[in-house]
Amino acid sequence: MPRTHASLPRLHVAPALAQGQELTLERDQSNYLGAVLRMQPGDEVILFNGRDGAWLARVVNPNKKAVSLELVEQTAPQTPPSDLWYGFAPLKSARLDYVVQKATEMGAGTIQPVITRFTQVHRLNADKLLANVIEAAEQCEVLTVPDVAPDITLDKLIAGWNPERALVFADEGQASSSPLEALRRLAGRPVGLLVGPEGGFSDEEREKLLAQPFTVPISLGPRILRADTAAVAALAVIQATIGDWR
Amino acid sequence: MPRTHASLPRLHVAPALAQGQELTLERDQSNYLGAVLRMQPGDEVILFNGRDGAWLARVVNPNKKAVSLELVEQTAPQTPPSDLWYGFAPLKSARLDYVVQKATEMGAGTIQPVITRFTQVHRLNADKLLANVIEAAEQCEVLTVPDVAPDITLDKLIAGWNPERALVFADEGQASSSPLEALRRLAGRPVGLLVGPEGGFSDEEREKLLAQPFTVPISLGPRILRADTAAVAALAVIQATIGDWR
Repeated sequence: MPRTHASLPRLHVAPALAQGQELTLERDQSNYLGAVLRMQPGDEVILFNGRDGAWLARVVNPNKKAVSLELVEQTAPQTPPSDLWYGFAPLKSARLDYVVQKATEMGAGTIQPVITRFTQVHRLNADKLLANVIEAAEQCEVLTVPDVAPDITLDKLIAGWNPERALVFADEGQASSSPLEALRRLAGRPVGLLVGPEGGFSDEEREKLLAQPFTVPISLGPRILRADTAAVAALAVIQATIGDWR
Repeated sequence: MPRTHASLPRLHVAPALAQGQELTLERDQSNYLGAVLRMQPGDEVILFNGRDGAWLARVVNPNKKAVSLELVEQTAPQTPPSDLWYGFAPLKSARLDYVVQKATEMGAGTIQPVITRFTQVHRLNADKLLANVIEAAEQCEVLTVPDVAPDITLDKLIAGWNPERALVFADEGQASSSPLEALRRLAGRPVGLLVGPEGGFSDEEREKLLAQPFTVPISLGPRILRADTAAVAALAVIQATIGDWR
Protein backbone atom coordinates (compact mmCIF):
# COMPACT_ATOMS: atom_id res chain seq x y z
CA MET A 1 0.00 0.00 0.00
CA PRO A 2 1.55 3.32 -1.01
CA ARG A 3 2.10 5.51 2.02
CA THR A 4 1.50 8.87 0.43
CA HIS A 5 0.67 10.53 3.72
CA ALA A 6 3.53 8.92 5.57
CA SER A 7 5.53 12.08 5.97
CA LEU A 8 2.72 14.36 7.14
CA PRO A 9 2.61 15.29 10.82
CA ARG A 10 0.04 13.24 12.72
CA LEU A 11 -1.82 14.82 15.60
CA HIS A 12 -4.18 13.36 18.16
CA VAL A 13 -7.09 15.69 18.88
CA ALA A 14 -10.17 15.47 21.06
CA PRO A 15 -13.12 16.63 18.90
CA ALA A 16 -15.17 14.47 16.56
CA LEU A 17 -13.87 14.47 12.98
CA ALA A 18 -16.13 14.79 9.95
CA GLN A 19 -16.06 16.09 6.38
CA GLY A 20 -15.79 19.86 5.96
CA GLN A 21 -15.43 20.44 9.68
CA GLU A 22 -13.18 23.17 10.94
CA LEU A 23 -11.30 22.90 14.19
CA THR A 24 -8.82 24.97 16.13
CA LEU A 25 -5.89 23.33 17.84
CA GLU A 26 -4.88 23.73 21.47
CA ARG A 27 -1.91 25.94 22.34
CA ASP A 28 0.86 23.31 22.33
CA GLN A 29 -0.14 21.77 19.03
CA SER A 30 -0.72 25.23 17.51
CA ASN A 31 2.80 26.22 18.52
CA TYR A 32 4.14 23.00 17.01
CA LEU A 33 2.50 23.51 13.62
CA GLY A 34 2.69 27.30 13.53
CA ALA A 35 6.06 28.08 15.06
CA VAL A 36 8.11 24.87 14.93
CA LEU A 37 7.00 23.48 11.56
CA ARG A 38 6.09 26.97 10.25
CA MET A 39 3.13 25.66 8.35
CA GLN A 40 1.35 27.84 5.79
CA PRO A 41 -2.28 27.92 4.65
CA GLY A 42 -2.90 24.86 2.50
CA ASP A 43 -0.28 22.70 4.23
CA GLU A 44 -1.55 19.30 5.27
CA VAL A 45 -1.58 17.18 8.41
CA ILE A 46 -3.25 13.97 9.51
CA LEU A 47 -5.64 14.11 12.48
CA PHE A 48 -7.09 11.27 14.53
CA ASN A 49 -9.04 11.01 17.79
CA GLY A 50 -9.14 7.26 18.44
CA ARG A 51 -12.77 7.04 17.24
CA ASP A 52 -13.14 8.41 13.69
CA GLY A 53 -10.18 6.99 11.79
CA ALA A 54 -7.49 9.16 10.20
CA TRP A 55 -8.34 12.43 8.45
CA LEU A 56 -6.42 14.63 6.05
CA ALA A 57 -6.70 18.25 7.20
CA ARG A 58 -5.54 21.50 5.64
CA VAL A 59 -4.22 24.56 7.47
CA VAL A 60 -6.56 27.55 7.22
CA ASN A 61 -4.99 29.97 9.71
CA PRO A 62 -1.40 29.21 10.77
CA ASN A 63 -1.52 31.48 13.84
CA LYS A 64 0.93 29.82 16.22
CA LYS A 65 -1.37 30.40 19.20
CA ALA A 66 -4.48 28.95 17.55
CA VAL A 67 -3.94 27.08 14.29
CA SER A 68 -7.20 26.35 12.52
CA LEU A 69 -7.64 23.44 10.17
CA GLU A 70 -10.29 22.26 7.72
CA LEU A 71 -10.97 18.56 7.38
CA VAL A 72 -10.61 17.36 3.80
CA GLU A 73 -11.24 13.62 3.73
CA GLN A 74 -10.84 10.43 5.72
CA THR A 75 -7.61 8.65 4.75
CA ALA A 76 -8.01 5.52 6.88
CA PRO A 77 -11.01 3.94 8.61
CA GLN A 78 -11.09 3.57 12.36
CA THR A 79 -9.39 0.39 13.51
CA PRO A 80 -11.35 -1.77 15.96
CA PRO A 81 -10.83 -1.28 19.68
CA SER A 82 -8.42 -3.66 21.31
CA ASP A 83 -9.62 -5.91 24.10
CA LEU A 84 -6.10 -6.76 25.24
CA TRP A 85 -5.43 -5.63 28.83
CA TYR A 86 -1.79 -4.97 29.66
CA GLY A 87 -0.63 -4.48 33.23
CA PHE A 88 2.91 -3.69 34.19
CA ALA A 89 4.90 -2.90 37.30
CA PRO A 90 6.08 0.66 36.62
CA LEU A 91 9.76 1.22 35.95
CA LYS A 92 11.75 4.38 36.43
CA SER A 93 11.10 7.32 34.09
CA ALA A 94 12.76 6.62 30.71
CA ARG A 95 12.08 2.91 30.79
CA LEU A 96 8.50 3.65 31.88
CA ASP A 97 7.92 5.90 28.88
CA TYR A 98 9.41 3.20 26.75
CA VAL A 99 7.18 0.43 28.10
CA VAL A 100 4.05 2.52 27.54
CA GLN A 101 5.12 3.36 23.98
CA LYS A 102 5.85 -0.28 23.17
CA ALA A 103 2.50 -1.41 24.57
CA THR A 104 0.79 1.11 22.28
CA GLU A 105 2.77 -0.07 19.24
CA MET A 106 1.92 -3.66 20.08
CA GLY A 107 -1.84 -3.04 20.19
CA ALA A 108 -2.74 -3.02 23.88
CA GLY A 109 -6.29 -1.75 24.49
CA THR A 110 -5.91 -0.87 28.15
CA ILE A 111 -2.65 -0.09 29.90
CA GLN A 112 -2.59 -0.23 33.70
CA PRO A 113 0.26 0.26 36.17
CA VAL A 114 0.25 -2.49 38.82
CA ILE A 115 2.10 -1.91 42.09
CA THR A 116 3.89 -5.03 43.33
CA ARG A 117 6.30 -5.77 46.17
CA PHE A 118 9.45 -5.05 44.17
CA THR A 119 8.03 -2.21 42.09
CA GLN A 120 10.57 0.59 41.76
CA VAL A 121 8.13 3.46 41.49
CA HIS A 122 5.10 4.28 43.58
CA ARG A 123 4.05 7.68 42.39
CA LEU A 124 2.87 7.85 38.85
CA ASN A 125 2.03 10.81 36.72
CA ALA A 126 -1.08 9.74 34.84
CA ASP A 127 -0.86 12.73 32.49
CA LYS A 128 2.65 11.73 31.50
CA LEU A 129 1.59 8.16 30.81
CA LEU A 130 -1.22 9.35 28.59
CA ALA A 131 1.11 11.76 26.80
CA ASN A 132 3.41 8.84 26.03
CA VAL A 133 0.52 6.77 24.73
CA ILE A 134 -0.56 9.57 22.44
CA GLU A 135 2.97 10.24 21.20
CA ALA A 136 3.42 6.56 20.37
CA ALA A 137 0.06 6.50 18.58
CA GLU A 138 1.07 9.58 16.55
CA GLN A 139 4.49 8.18 15.64
CA CYS A 140 3.36 4.69 14.77
CA GLU A 141 0.12 5.55 13.00
CA VAL A 142 -1.89 3.72 15.63
CA LEU A 143 -5.54 4.75 15.36
CA THR A 144 -6.88 2.85 18.33
CA VAL A 145 -5.54 4.75 21.30
CA PRO A 146 -5.15 2.62 24.45
CA ASP A 147 -6.91 3.67 27.65
CA VAL A 148 -4.65 4.32 30.62
CA ALA A 149 -6.27 2.93 33.78
CA PRO A 150 -5.33 4.22 37.26
CA ASP A 151 -2.59 2.39 39.10
CA ILE A 152 -3.68 -0.49 41.30
CA THR A 153 -2.00 -2.84 43.75
CA LEU A 154 -1.52 -6.45 42.74
CA ASP A 155 -3.79 -7.57 45.58
CA LYS A 156 -6.63 -5.32 44.47
CA LEU A 157 -6.11 -6.33 40.84
CA ILE A 158 -6.47 -10.01 41.70
CA ALA A 159 -9.41 -9.39 44.03
CA GLY A 160 -11.35 -7.48 41.39
CA TRP A 161 -10.38 -9.54 38.34
CA ASN A 162 -13.17 -10.85 36.09
CA PRO A 163 -12.42 -14.60 36.06
CA GLU A 164 -13.61 -14.97 32.48
CA ARG A 165 -10.58 -12.98 31.35
CA ALA A 166 -7.39 -15.01 31.27
CA LEU A 167 -4.49 -13.36 33.07
CA VAL A 168 -1.26 -14.35 31.35
CA PHE A 169 1.95 -13.67 33.23
CA ALA A 170 5.58 -14.52 32.58
CA ASP A 171 6.66 -16.92 35.31
CA GLU A 172 10.39 -17.37 35.73
CA GLY A 173 9.68 -20.51 37.73
CA GLN A 174 8.27 -22.28 34.69
CA ALA A 175 10.58 -24.71 32.91
CA SER A 176 11.73 -23.17 29.67
CA SER A 177 9.15 -23.95 27.04
CA SER A 178 7.32 -22.29 24.21
CA PRO A 179 4.25 -20.35 25.33
CA LEU A 180 2.43 -20.87 22.03
CA GLU A 181 0.44 -23.94 23.06
CA ALA A 182 -0.72 -22.40 26.34
CA LEU A 183 -1.75 -19.23 24.51
CA ARG A 184 -3.57 -21.01 21.72
CA ARG A 185 -5.85 -22.62 24.28
CA LEU A 186 -7.09 -19.13 25.18
CA ALA A 187 -8.52 -18.43 21.71
CA GLY A 188 -11.96 -16.83 22.03
CA ARG A 189 -11.43 -15.64 25.62
CA PRO A 190 -10.63 -12.08 26.64
CA VAL A 191 -6.98 -11.88 27.63
CA GLY A 192 -4.78 -9.81 29.92
CA LEU A 193 -0.99 -9.80 30.25
CA LEU A 194 0.79 -8.90 33.47
CA VAL A 195 4.52 -8.14 33.40
CA GLY A 196 6.28 -7.97 36.76
CA PRO A 197 9.03 -5.61 37.91
CA GLU A 198 12.76 -6.05 37.30
CA GLY A 199 13.10 -7.98 40.56
CA GLY A 200 10.25 -10.29 39.60
CA PHE A 201 7.30 -11.16 41.78
CA SER A 202 7.87 -12.06 45.42
CA ASP A 203 7.39 -15.72 46.34
CA GLU A 204 4.13 -14.79 48.05
CA GLU A 205 2.88 -12.87 45.00
CA ARG A 206 3.82 -15.71 42.71
CA GLU A 207 2.01 -18.28 44.84
CA LYS A 208 -1.05 -16.08 44.96
CA LEU A 209 -1.05 -15.65 41.17
CA LEU A 210 -0.61 -19.37 40.57
CA ALA A 211 -3.49 -20.12 42.95
CA GLN A 212 -6.04 -18.16 40.89
CA PRO A 213 -8.18 -20.14 38.42
CA PHE A 214 -7.83 -17.47 35.75
CA THR A 215 -4.05 -17.08 35.67
CA VAL A 216 -1.98 -18.61 32.86
CA PRO A 217 1.75 -18.74 33.67
CA ILE A 218 3.99 -18.85 30.61
CA SER A 219 7.68 -19.21 30.03
CA LEU A 220 9.52 -16.68 27.90
CA GLY A 221 12.47 -18.95 27.23
CA PRO A 222 15.66 -19.96 29.01
CA ARG A 223 17.09 -16.49 29.52
CA ILE A 224 16.21 -13.75 31.97
CA LEU A 225 14.53 -10.87 30.17
CA ARG A 226 14.51 -7.27 31.33
CA ALA A 227 10.97 -6.14 32.08
CA ASP A 228 10.71 -4.03 28.94
CA THR A 229 12.03 -6.87 26.74
CA ALA A 230 9.60 -9.29 28.37
CA ALA A 231 6.74 -6.89 27.67
CA VAL A 232 7.35 -6.74 23.92
CA ALA A 233 8.21 -10.44 23.66
CA ALA A 234 5.06 -11.51 25.51
CA LEU A 235 2.83 -9.10 23.58
CA ALA A 236 4.32 -10.40 20.32
CA VAL A 237 3.57 -14.05 21.05
CA ILE A 238 0.08 -13.16 22.28
CA GLN A 239 -0.77 -11.06 19.22
CA ALA A 240 0.72 -13.65 16.89
CA THR A 241 -1.22 -16.60 18.36
CA ILE A 242 -4.59 -15.22 19.49
CA GLY A 243 -4.44 -11.50 18.84
CA ASP A 244 -4.74 -9.12 15.95
CA TRP A 245 -1.73 -10.14 13.92
CA ARG A 246 -3.93 -12.68 12.20
CA MET B 1 15.18 -22.93 41.14
CA PRO B 2 16.53 -20.84 44.00
CA ARG B 3 18.68 -18.04 42.69
CA THR B 4 21.21 -17.94 45.49
CA HIS B 5 23.84 -16.27 43.36
CA ALA B 6 21.45 -13.81 41.80
CA SER B 7 22.81 -10.80 43.62
CA LEU B 8 26.50 -11.43 43.04
CA PRO B 9 28.29 -9.29 40.47
CA ARG B 10 28.74 -11.12 37.18
CA LEU B 11 31.83 -10.43 35.10
CA HIS B 12 32.80 -11.55 31.63
CA VAL B 13 36.47 -12.48 31.41
CA ALA B 14 38.72 -13.83 28.68
CA PRO B 15 40.72 -16.69 30.24
CA ALA B 16 39.64 -20.32 30.49
CA LEU B 17 37.89 -21.12 33.78
CA ALA B 18 38.63 -24.26 35.82
CA GLN B 19 38.60 -25.47 39.41
CA GLY B 20 41.19 -23.94 41.73
CA GLN B 21 42.45 -21.58 39.09
CA GLU B 22 43.56 -18.09 40.03
CA LEU B 23 43.16 -15.14 37.75
CA THR B 24 43.83 -11.44 37.89
CA LEU B 25 41.32 -9.00 36.46
CA GLU B 26 42.05 -6.23 33.97
CA ARG B 27 42.23 -2.62 35.17
CA ASP B 28 38.59 -1.59 34.62
CA GLN B 29 37.11 -4.64 36.28
CA SER B 30 39.66 -4.44 39.09
CA ASN B 31 38.64 -0.85 39.74
CA TYR B 32 34.98 -1.88 39.71
CA LEU B 33 35.38 -4.62 42.30
CA GLY B 34 38.14 -3.00 44.33
CA ALA B 35 37.18 0.66 44.39
CA VAL B 36 33.51 0.87 43.45
CA LEU B 37 32.18 -2.24 45.22
CA ARG B 38 35.01 -2.19 47.78
CA MET B 39 35.22 -5.95 47.87
CA GLN B 40 37.22 -7.71 50.59
CA PRO B 41 39.10 -11.03 50.57
CA GLY B 42 36.52 -13.82 50.60
CA ASP B 43 33.82 -11.83 48.82
CA GLU B 44 32.26 -13.64 45.90
CA VAL B 45 31.53 -12.94 42.25
CA ILE B 46 30.35 -14.95 39.27
CA LEU B 47 32.67 -15.22 36.26
CA PHE B 48 31.93 -16.44 32.74
CA ASN B 49 33.76 -16.39 29.41
CA GLY B 50 31.13 -17.67 26.97
CA ARG B 51 32.75 -21.13 26.84
CA ASP B 52 33.04 -22.65 30.33
CA GLY B 53 29.71 -21.92 31.99
CA ALA B 54 29.35 -19.79 35.13
CA TRP B 55 31.86 -20.00 37.97
CA LEU B 56 31.75 -18.84 41.58
CA ALA B 57 35.00 -17.03 42.39
CA ARG B 58 36.36 -15.60 45.63
CA VAL B 59 38.45 -12.44 46.04
CA VAL B 60 42.01 -13.15 47.11
CA ASN B 61 43.64 -9.73 46.74
CA PRO B 62 41.24 -6.75 46.45
CA ASN B 63 43.89 -4.38 45.05
CA LYS B 64 41.84 -1.99 42.94
CA LYS B 65 44.45 -2.00 40.16
CA ALA B 66 44.70 -5.79 39.93
CA VAL B 67 42.07 -7.78 41.79
CA SER B 68 42.93 -11.46 41.97
CA LEU B 69 40.33 -14.17 42.33
CA GLU B 70 40.30 -17.89 43.01
CA LEU B 71 37.77 -20.07 41.23
CA VAL B 72 35.66 -22.10 43.66
CA GLU B 73 33.15 -24.12 41.65
CA GLN B 74 31.05 -24.09 38.52
CA THR B 75 27.54 -22.83 39.28
CA ALA B 76 25.97 -23.33 35.87
CA PRO B 77 26.99 -25.38 32.84
CA GLN B 78 27.79 -23.71 29.55
CA THR B 79 24.69 -23.12 27.47
CA PRO B 80 24.86 -24.27 23.84
CA PRO B 81 25.95 -21.79 21.18
CA SER B 82 23.17 -20.09 19.29
CA ASP B 83 22.92 -20.52 15.55
CA LEU B 84 20.52 -17.61 15.14
CA TRP B 85 21.95 -14.83 12.96
CA TYR B 86 20.58 -11.36 13.61
CA GLY B 87 21.24 -8.48 11.25
CA PHE B 88 20.04 -4.97 11.82
CA ALA B 89 20.32 -1.56 10.22
CA PRO B 90 22.16 0.41 12.90
CA LEU B 91 20.26 3.12 14.75
CA LYS B 92 21.64 6.18 16.49
CA SER B 93 23.61 5.69 19.71
CA ALA B 94 21.18 4.96 22.58
CA ARG B 95 18.78 2.98 20.45
CA LEU B 96 21.74 1.09 18.95
CA ASP B 97 22.97 0.06 22.38
CA TYR B 98 19.44 -0.97 23.19
CA VAL B 99 19.00 -3.13 20.08
CA VAL B 100 22.28 -4.95 20.72
CA GLN B 101 21.32 -5.58 24.35
CA LYS B 102 17.90 -6.90 23.39
CA ALA B 103 19.38 -9.21 20.75
CA THR B 104 21.68 -10.65 23.44
CA GLU B 105 18.78 -11.14 25.86
CA MET B 106 16.78 -12.83 23.13
CA GLY B 107 19.49 -15.39 22.33
CA ALA B 108 21.03 -14.22 19.07
CA GLY B 109 24.25 -16.10 18.23
CA THR B 110 25.70 -13.61 15.78
CA ILE B 111 24.86 -9.92 15.63
CA GLN B 112 25.76 -8.02 12.47
CA PRO B 113 25.14 -4.40 11.45
CA VAL B 114 23.77 -4.18 7.90
CA ILE B 115 24.03 -0.89 6.02
CA THR B 116 20.92 -0.17 3.93
CA ARG B 117 19.73 2.81 1.89
CA PHE B 118 17.90 4.51 4.75
CA THR B 119 20.33 3.52 7.50
CA GLN B 120 20.90 6.43 9.85
CA VAL B 121 24.44 5.59 10.87
CA HIS B 122 27.41 4.65 8.74
CA ARG B 123 30.28 4.65 11.17
CA LEU B 124 30.13 2.02 13.83
CA ASN B 125 32.30 1.50 16.84
CA ALA B 126 32.78 -2.26 16.97
CA ASP B 127 34.29 -2.08 20.47
CA LYS B 128 31.20 -0.29 21.74
CA LEU B 129 28.91 -2.90 20.20
CA LEU B 130 30.86 -5.67 21.85
CA ALA B 131 30.84 -3.82 25.18
CA ASN B 132 27.06 -3.63 24.96
CA VAL B 133 26.81 -7.33 24.19
CA ILE B 134 28.95 -8.17 27.19
CA GLU B 135 27.06 -5.83 29.50
CA ALA B 136 23.77 -7.40 28.46
CA ALA B 137 25.21 -10.89 28.99
CA GLU B 138 26.40 -9.89 32.46
CA GLN B 139 23.08 -8.29 33.45
CA CYS B 140 20.84 -11.01 32.08
CA GLU B 141 22.91 -14.03 33.08
CA VAL B 142 23.41 -14.98 29.45
CA LEU B 143 26.26 -17.48 29.20
CA THR B 144 26.41 -17.79 25.43
CA VAL B 145 27.89 -14.50 24.33
CA PRO B 146 26.91 -13.48 20.78
CA ASP B 147 29.61 -12.78 18.21
CA VAL B 148 29.60 -9.30 16.71
CA ALA B 149 30.35 -9.50 12.99
CA PRO B 150 31.73 -6.52 11.04
CA ASP B 151 29.23 -4.25 9.35
CA ILE B 152 28.28 -5.13 5.81
CA THR B 153 26.18 -3.55 3.08
CA LEU B 154 22.86 -5.18 2.23
CA ASP B 155 24.11 -5.92 -1.29
CA LYS B 156 27.19 -7.75 -0.01
CA LEU B 157 25.11 -9.58 2.57
CA ILE B 158 22.75 -10.90 -0.08
CA ALA B 159 25.59 -11.73 -2.49
CA GLY B 160 27.46 -13.77 0.12
CA TRP B 161 24.47 -15.39 1.85
CA ASN B 162 24.49 -19.20 2.24
CA PRO B 163 21.19 -20.14 0.60
CA GLU B 164 20.61 -22.99 3.03
CA ARG B 165 20.06 -20.46 5.78
CA ALA B 166 16.62 -18.89 5.69
CA LEU B 167 16.68 -15.09 5.86
CA VAL B 168 13.57 -13.90 7.64
CA PHE B 169 12.72 -10.23 7.31
CA ALA B 170 9.76 -8.12 8.41
CA ASP B 171 8.04 -6.89 5.27
CA GLU B 172 5.63 -4.00 5.72
CA GLY B 173 4.19 -4.82 2.31
CA GLN B 174 2.85 -8.14 3.53
CA ALA B 175 -0.84 -8.25 4.39
CA SER B 176 -1.24 -8.37 8.16
CA SER B 177 -1.04 -12.01 9.18
CA SER B 178 0.52 -14.15 11.84
CA PRO B 179 4.11 -15.17 11.04
CA LEU B 180 3.88 -18.42 13.00
CA GLU B 181 2.98 -20.65 10.06
CA ALA B 182 5.73 -19.28 7.83
CA LEU B 183 8.24 -19.69 10.65
CA ARG B 184 7.19 -23.21 11.54
CA ARG B 185 7.99 -24.31 8.00
CA LEU B 186 11.63 -23.39 8.70
CA ALA B 187 12.05 -25.94 11.49
CA GLY B 188 15.37 -27.75 11.08
CA ARG B 189 16.97 -25.07 8.89
CA PRO B 190 19.49 -22.51 10.08
CA VAL B 191 17.79 -19.13 10.37
CA GLY B 192 18.69 -15.47 10.15
CA LEU B 193 16.57 -12.41 10.92
CA LEU B 194 17.10 -9.06 9.21
CA VAL B 195 15.49 -5.94 10.67
CA GLY B 196 15.49 -2.84 8.50
CA PRO B 197 16.01 0.80 9.48
CA GLU B 198 13.32 3.17 10.79
CA GLY B 199 12.54 4.29 7.24
CA GLY B 200 12.18 0.70 6.09
CA PHE B 201 13.83 -0.81 3.05
CA SER B 202 13.81 1.09 -0.24
CA ASP B 203 11.55 -0.29 -2.98
CA GLU B 204 14.64 -1.54 -4.79
CA GLU B 205 16.00 -3.26 -1.68
CA ARG B 206 12.66 -4.86 -0.97
CA GLU B 207 12.33 -6.20 -4.50
CA LYS B 208 15.84 -7.59 -4.33
CA LEU B 209 15.13 -9.32 -0.99
CA LEU B 210 11.88 -10.79 -2.26
CA ALA B 211 13.64 -12.10 -5.36
CA GLN B 212 16.06 -14.29 -3.41
CA PRO B 213 15.13 -17.96 -2.97
CA PHE B 214 16.23 -17.96 0.68
CA THR B 215 14.29 -14.96 1.97
CA VAL B 216 11.16 -15.41 4.06
CA PRO B 217 9.08 -12.21 4.35
CA ILE B 218 6.85 -12.09 7.42
CA SER B 219 4.27 -9.71 8.73
CA LEU B 220 4.53 -8.35 12.25
CA GLY B 221 0.90 -7.34 12.45
CA PRO B 222 -1.26 -4.43 11.35
CA ARG B 223 0.68 -1.66 13.07
CA ILE B 224 3.97 0.00 12.21
CA LEU B 225 6.64 -1.03 14.68
CA ARG B 226 9.71 0.99 15.54
CA ALA B 227 12.86 -0.86 14.52
CA ASP B 228 13.76 -1.80 18.10
CA THR B 229 10.23 -3.05 18.83
CA ALA B 230 10.25 -5.07 15.60
CA ALA B 231 13.56 -6.63 16.59
CA VAL B 232 12.29 -7.99 19.92
CA ALA B 233 8.90 -8.97 18.50
CA ALA B 234 10.43 -10.87 15.58
CA LEU B 235 13.06 -12.57 17.76
CA ALA B 236 10.29 -13.60 20.18
CA VAL B 237 8.15 -15.29 17.55
CA ILE B 238 11.21 -16.98 16.03
CA GLN B 239 12.47 -18.30 19.36
CA ALA B 240 8.98 -19.40 20.37
CA THR B 241 8.26 -21.34 17.15
CA ILE B 242 11.60 -22.77 15.99
CA GLY B 243 14.18 -21.49 18.45
CA ASP B 244 15.37 -22.22 21.93
CA TRP B 245 12.27 -21.36 23.91
CA ARG B 246 11.15 -24.92 23.45
